[in-house]
Amino acid sequence: MAKEKKQEVDEEIEEVKESENDSIEKEAEDIDIPEISEVEELTNKFNEMEDKFLRARAEIANMSNRNKNEREQLVRYRSQDLGKKLLPAIDNLERALATEVTDDHGTSLKKGVEMVLESLTVALKEEGITEIEAEGKIFDPNLHQAVQTVPAEGDTKPETIVNVLQKGYQLHDRVLRPAMVIVAQ
Amino acid sequence: MAKEKKQEVDEEIEEVKESENDSIEKEAEDIDIPEISEVEELTNKFNEMEDKFLRARAEIANMSNRNKNEREQLVRYRSQDLGKKLLPAIDNLERALATEVTDDHGTSLKKGVEMVLESLTVALKEEGITEIEAEGKIFDPNLHQAVQTVPAEGDTKPETIVNVLQKGYQLHDRVLRPAMVIVAQ
Repeated sequence: MAKEKKQEVDEEIEEVKESENDSIEKEAEDIDIPEISEVEELTNKFNEMEDKFLRARAEIANMSNRNKNEREQLVRYRSQDLGKKLLPAIDNLERALATEVTDDHGTSLKKGVEMVLESLTVALKEEGITEIEAEGKIFDPNLHQAVQTVPAEGDTKPETIVNVLQKGYQLHDRVLRPAMVIVAQ
Repeated sequence: MAKEKKQEVDEEIEEVKESENDSIEKEAEDIDIPEISEVEELTNKFNEMEDKFLRARAEIANMSNRNKNEREQLVRYRSQDLGKKLLPAIDNLERALATEVTDDHGTSLKKGVEMVLESLTVALKEEGITEIEAEGKIFDPNLHQAVQTVPAEGDTKPETIVNVLQKGYQLHDRVLRPAMVIVAQ
């Protein structure tokens, strides 16, 4: 092979190599860049999904607690509405019992009413509904409603409840109606 | 360029191309195999996480429905316990009212008791507690309890309730206590 020819060949080879290199680089662009971005994309998708899952799991825990609390509140205060509606009936029974009776029939009727009142009070107590303590206690605006004040006499301290005009009732910590009271000042 | 020379050059070029191809394939092996397994691994991880997320989301929907139902049931039947306890009081008031009174005091007491009974019945009704229909109805073992049977007389069809010894009550569709009845046979 002549030197000149050899050089010519080498040049052509070099050209081909270069073009091949170009094509390799091109192929590398075609293959590698999408590969890397696919991994990145998948990693991002995974992270997003993991985030969604962790949020969902937190929501489940929150819902569970919230529902437990709601259920407990519903059970604890379930008798609020019916209990509240029974209070006027109890007032009326107490008022009826204040009636004086003179004959045996009346006495028998009164005895029956006393029993009914007792059974109502017991039923309410079992549901957590109790009378608010008032007479002789210090006035508490959360539990008592002052409808009248009188001057404090003798040993009576100011703000003491001296008379209860209508009984108050509470369901656990919740006031169904305040006691209507007269307060010494 | 002579034809012969041209062929020589082509052959050399072919060789170079092949060796370049080998190197491309080698490079591809070095790069691609870990890339593919990483993609696969990530895809699997993503699918698993997506599955966990979808299950969590389904659980949230289930919890939400379950809790809504539970809440509705708790509200619907909330007065069951207190209502049940009030029934003997109502029985006693009705029994007391059956007492004959002869004087004004007794009449006044009786009027008071009637009012109380009325207000109790209204309160129960508002909570969904109603008397079970019995007298003149066909006996239904889900609602009535037969304590006595009598022969059917005249137009009375068999299985008809001819007398109610104690009223029954239901809370919506739930029987608080069946009516105690006498049935014609």
